[in-house]
Amino acid sequence: MPSENDTKKPAASEKKTATAVKMASKQQEISVTEFFEKNKQILGFDSRSKSLLMGIKEAVDNSLDACEEAAILPDVDVTIDRLNDEDYHIVIEDNGPGIVHKMMPNVFGRLLYGSRFHALRQSRGQQGIGISATVMYGNITTGKPAHVESKIEGEDEVAWGMDIVIDTKANRPIVTNDKAFTWEGKEHGTRIAYTIKGRYITGKQSIFEYLRDTAIVNPHAQIVFRDPEGKRFTFERATDIMPPRPKEIKPHPEGMEIGDLMKYASNSAQKTMNTFLKNDFSRITDRLAKEILAKAKVKEDKKPADLTREEAIAILEAIKTAKIMAPPTDCLSPIGDHLIKKGLMHVLDGLRPEYYATPVTRSPKAVNGNPFVVEAGIVYGGDIPSDGQVQILRFANRVPLLYQQGACAITKAISEMDWRRYGLEQRGGKGIPYGPAIILVHVASTKVPFTSEGKEAVAGFPELQSEIGLALRLCARNLKSHLNKMERKKKTHAKFEIVQEILPDMAQKAADHLGKPVPNLDRTITKIMNVVWVEPSVEKKGKNLRVIKYTVYNYTNTKRTLRLHAQVPRESLNLTLYSNPFFLDINDEGKANWEIPDIEPSMHKELMFELSGDMADTFDADDIYFSGLNPVIVMGAELLPGDWGIKGMEIVESDDDFVNEDEEEETEVEELDDE
Amino acid sequence: MPSENDTKKPAASEKKTATAVKMASKQQEISVTEFFEKNKQILGFDSRSKSLLMGIKEAVDNSLDACEEAAILPDVDVTIDRLNDEDYHIVIEDNGPGIVHKMMPNVFGRLLYGSRFHALRQSRGQQGIGISATVMYGNITTGKPAHVESKIEGEDEVAWGMDIVIDTKANRPIVTNDKAFTWEGKEHGTRIAYTIKGRYITGKQSIFEYLRDTAIVNPHAQIVFRDPEGKRFTFERATDIMPPRPKEIKPHPEGMEIGDLMKYASNSAQKTMNTFLKNDFSRITDRLAKEILAKAKVKEDKKPADLTREEAIAILEAIKTAKIMAPPTDCLSPIGDHLIKKGLMHVLDGLRPEYYATPVTRSPKAVNGNPFVVEAGIVYGGDIPSDGQVQILRFANRVPLLYQQGACAITKAISEMDWRRYGLEQRGGKGIPYGPAIILVHVASTKVPFTSEGKEAVAGFPELQSEIGLALRLCARNLKSHLNKMERKKKTHAKFEIVQEILPDMAQKAADHLGKPVPNLDRTITKIMNVVWVEPSVEKKGKNLRVIKYTVYNYTNTKRTLRLHAQVPRESLNLTLYSNPFFLDINDEGKANWEIPDIEPSMHKELMFELSGDMADTFDADDIYFSGLNPVIVMGAELLPGDWGIKGMEIVESDDDFVNEDEEEETEVEELDDE
Repeated sequence: MPSENDTKKPAASEKKTATAVKMASKQQEISVTEFFEKNKQILGFDSRSKSLLMGIKEAVDNSLDACEEAAILPDVDVTIDRLNDEDYHIVIEDNGPGIVHKMMPNVFGRLLYGSRFHALRQSRGQQGIGISATVMYGNITTGKPAHVESKIEGEDEVAWGMDIVIDTKANRPIVTNDKAFTWEGKEHGTRIAYTIKGRYITGKQSIFEYLRDTAIVNPHAQIVFRDPEGKRFTFERATDIMPPRPKEIKPHPEGMEIGDLMKYASNSAQKTMNTFLKNDFSRITDRLAKEILAKAKVKEDKKPADLTREEAIAILEAIKTAKIMAPPTDCLSPIGDHLIKKGLMHVLDGLRPEYYATPVTRSPKAVNGNPFVVEAGIVYGGDIPSDGQVQILRFANRVPLLYQQGACAITKAISEMDWRRYGLEQRGGKGIPYGPAIILVHVASTKVPFTSEGKEAVAGFPELQSEIGLALRLCARNLKSHLNKMERKKKTHAKFEIVQEILPDMAQKAADHLGKPVPNLDRTITKIMNVVWVEPSVEKKGKNLRVIKYTVYNYTNTKRTLRLHAQVPRESLNLTLYSNPFFLDINDEGKANWEIPDIEPSMHKELMFELSGDMADTFDADDIYFSGLNPVIVMGAELLPGDWGIKGMEIVESDDDFVNEDEEEETEVEELDDE
Repeated sequence: MPSENDTKKPAASEKKTATAVKMASKQQEISVTEFFEKNKQILGFDSRSKSLLMGIKEAVDNSLDACEEAAILPDVDVTIDRLNDEDYHIVIEDNGPGIVHKMMPNVFGRLLYGSRFHALRQSRGQQGIGISATVMYGNITTGKPAHVESKIEGEDEVAWGMDIVIDTKANRPIVTNDKAFTWEGKEHGTRIAYTIKGRYITGKQSIFEYLRDTAIVNPHAQIVFRDPEGKRFTFERATDIMPPRPKEIKPHPEGMEIGDLMKYASNSAQKTMNTFLKNDFSRITDRLAKEILAKAKVKEDKKPADLTREEAIAILEAIKTAKIMAPPTDCLSPIGDHLIKKGLMHVLDGLRPEYYATPVTRSPKAVNGNPFVVEAGIVYGGDIPSDGQVQILRFANRVPLLYQQGACAITKAISEMDWRRYGLEQRGGKGIPYGPAIILVHVASTKVPFTSEGKEAVAGFPELQSEIGLALRLCARNLKSHLNKMERKKKTHAKFEIVQEILPDMAQKAADHLGKPVPNLDRTITKIMNVVWVEPSVEKKGKNLRVIKYTVYNYTNTKRTLRLHAQVPRESLNLTLYSNPFFLDINDEGKANWEIPDIEPSMHKELMFELSGDMADTFDADDIYFSGLNPVIVMGAELLPGDWGIKGMEIVESDDDFVNEDEEEETEVEELDDE
């Protein structure tokens, strides 16, 4: 290698050689800790207010994960004290299973260290970065160590506490004051206390908002929060039922890359390719393994470690054409319709919307071998402010996402949809729509593809993006059909009122003119209208009581019997439902059925019941279905759809010229499904 | 530690103890390579089309960095071949200084390894991740190794080539076929060839767009691109002058955290606190070091390694109140006004805009010890489509940012500004504005705070965000004052035309009526108008020739002499400027001065010159200034501002009631500066 003293070469080339050599001398390893120390924004520690939130988020997410892993109903306490201008002291304590003494330093004091990274199962923390990063930023900004304590279950076990500082050059914990002590309070659990520079804010993107939204989608958790002014907020546990614990699964072969397959093969404990495919992947049966290997021309008893690149390519091709079942869903824990509605309600904070669109939970898909599920919900109208952009609530694996909205696949999916077709304002059919609506989207996956280690936004993988789009469209279609219904109703109502007002008026004038008595017009009106009219009404009685009334008018020439159907929130039911004479039955989902018999021409009958509790408002009285009559003569209710699933309920065939107006959109959504 | 066989405890607690122990057994280190393998979206390798772009971007950015480091005018060749459906073979070759043989494996085959991470100096690649990640995704998606070759300068040097695969478990390169060979073609340089799964797209967010935008802001580079169809595009070098090489600096004390200070102190080679502050930081003089230490009550001869936390806090407090110069700018390489205009012009692709707002380059600030500079430019109106959102061009350290627009501090700054005040449409004064405009923003820093390792968006640090906002406001104010000028001109023009049309008309009618001859109205019009009128016009002569004409009408009672001033693009000048009889002089910035003497009442004179070349269109004829007359009688030109900086040019004092209408906004911007 030439040195700078090599005098044979011209000056210019000497200089250039020097560059390569000079650069070589600067080439060096960058410690991952140093990398994040200098790029703290990547972990979400950019502004002071965000840093304060990030630390708490990482700790609370870990607490919830640990409790769920041990099937413990989580109790999490968050306490913030302001020491001075920018220094805050934070304590987060849980009742989780605790952390084994010797693992504590690495869990809290080493980046890229954890238990959930390699597990294919829905959890909040997966990177092994968050809590150590919090400890590191506490260290960097205040120079103080973090103090962690943990007690694992068992009477004989003592609790351990220690101070931790991270050596950023080596990415290793430096532990001091490692001591056993007697744990007081909860039976077991983990407590982390640290000092960090921050700024405490309220309102949007605040710690309060994060904890509230966390409580909404984790109703099995109780969260107690003491803010820097000493105010205590308790987010009560809403249910004692743990969500089903997500099961760990094997990778799904869908969307696997050749490098993944070759790595799995070379690391496999299996002796043959057949058993490798069968046992190391989910959803590959013996029959499928045989089929794939035959198609790829790979011997069944070949050792996986001997797999060549060409064979791997052939196997991937064979997998593409094989019919493999969708990934299992028990590795995931979706929020569910009910909680989505409830969540939206909480966010409304007492405001009364016009309509809750039925939340949509899509069936699972996979991206890069990781199953995922998308859920969406929309609430519309009423008291929701209508002058700004719609509010977007984003969740990933039951964690609220408060920052980086613009970077998120959820926002992108919302922006790329033409909401004008669904009744919202949107310039040019692109961008976040305007109007009185709140849109909630939850992405649950064994590995949520976040755009950065800060876990603030979901990356726009095409498969994921398109699933979010579909969930939104289905939900929006729901909204649109409500808005259509309202529009139709308004029109029919207008016609109805005209007939009822003008006819008697005309009759009156004619009678006056002729000097004759005013004739009874009921039958005339009936003849003109020729409808069975269902008129819903909701009366508010106190904060949490609603009186629901359906009046059924028979404006036809013959006696009519009508069945009504509605899905009511089960927990809001009270005796009035069961005691109503028209009541037939109700199933577990809250699908209720009534029969209103023998309404004479020009007469009406009333169906009435009450709903109570805080879910009462999620019931949409306009969401009423009928059966037993030809749809052309029924107004104010929709024909019961075929999938209502009630045994023995006889559905009248619809006329040929009766067209479901949602049909067209349905087709569009189905087409999108195939994209 | 209790085992699962410990029978003394109840079943429940046994299970819970088991959880902590079970979890402990799963705790493990996560290799950084494995982390990114499973989170490829963080590096930008999510969709196939984006992956293809990312790899090329990382390689080209490295080539440009290396060439600049060695002061070589860059020649970069990019070749893409499509092997089959999704497999692409990519070759990127440069004429850079090359890479020393023994460093090649680590540079291309190890994540978090590089030469620029620790250097405080503007460069494109800093993380030591990008190119190794590209090699890794080539490996993973196609199973093929990357092939790299390099030849360093020097006749005696042989070139070396090798195949590289990354061991993702160990984050180490696995090298095969390491061979010396004879380099052909360029004198020295580096060539990387790899196969990767991708999708080749054209148009928005394409490789072509990235290379074009790169060429625009790196006019000293020549880039040759061969697309998968064999089409060759050459982005010619526009200048042989290298941008000044950014100098490496020491950290600036502004915004330093206590952890940083203590780390610097403990790693310092300096013997005393005084020399430590003076020599390890930029902008700390001996006087300042003494002042800071005195204020913090730390002895000057204390050993830096002995600095306590309390002393560090005191020093940081003292630094806050000390008057430390802004960071040096020679570590940065801004694009500059001229290239910003040129860049905007290229993007317009032949469309003719109405107005180029003068680009703004802010003075440097620091965030976390890293100096940064923000530049902004706006082009408006004319042929630019006016029905959609404005187009945003984002650059960081001379690299175009094509993805993650929604996540970027630049977009956020644009969205949070009320553009309605500056003549663009924007609902509610928030969000990306609509209208015929293109907005360019460049952030240059010794360390650009990207939101993720994919380097697609700039994080929203408050200091940075506010600087971007200020640059945009200044630029927009410029636009607004142009729009105001146009509006005023239109109005005055209308008045002018009325006087010129109606008066003669009235005179004609009066004369007809009285049977007398029509009087000469010139003096009457002059009396009514009492202005000196400057009327600019631009005539297009062929693709690149513009004839600029200023007609100066004297509608006052006395003979007038007027000076005109305009800034013209120097490279567009031709002899017509110098040969014009009214021409006085022109300076290096293109600020030209004319004097139009002795215009008699009711007479006019014409100033005419030509501009040629592709920058001719960036000249705004309406941007014309005058001096030598009282501003209340001049229409169609603005009073020459005080900072025009022309020696010996006599400026007439403005009347007391003459108010600069930009003054109010100026104040607002200044106030923002103090935020």
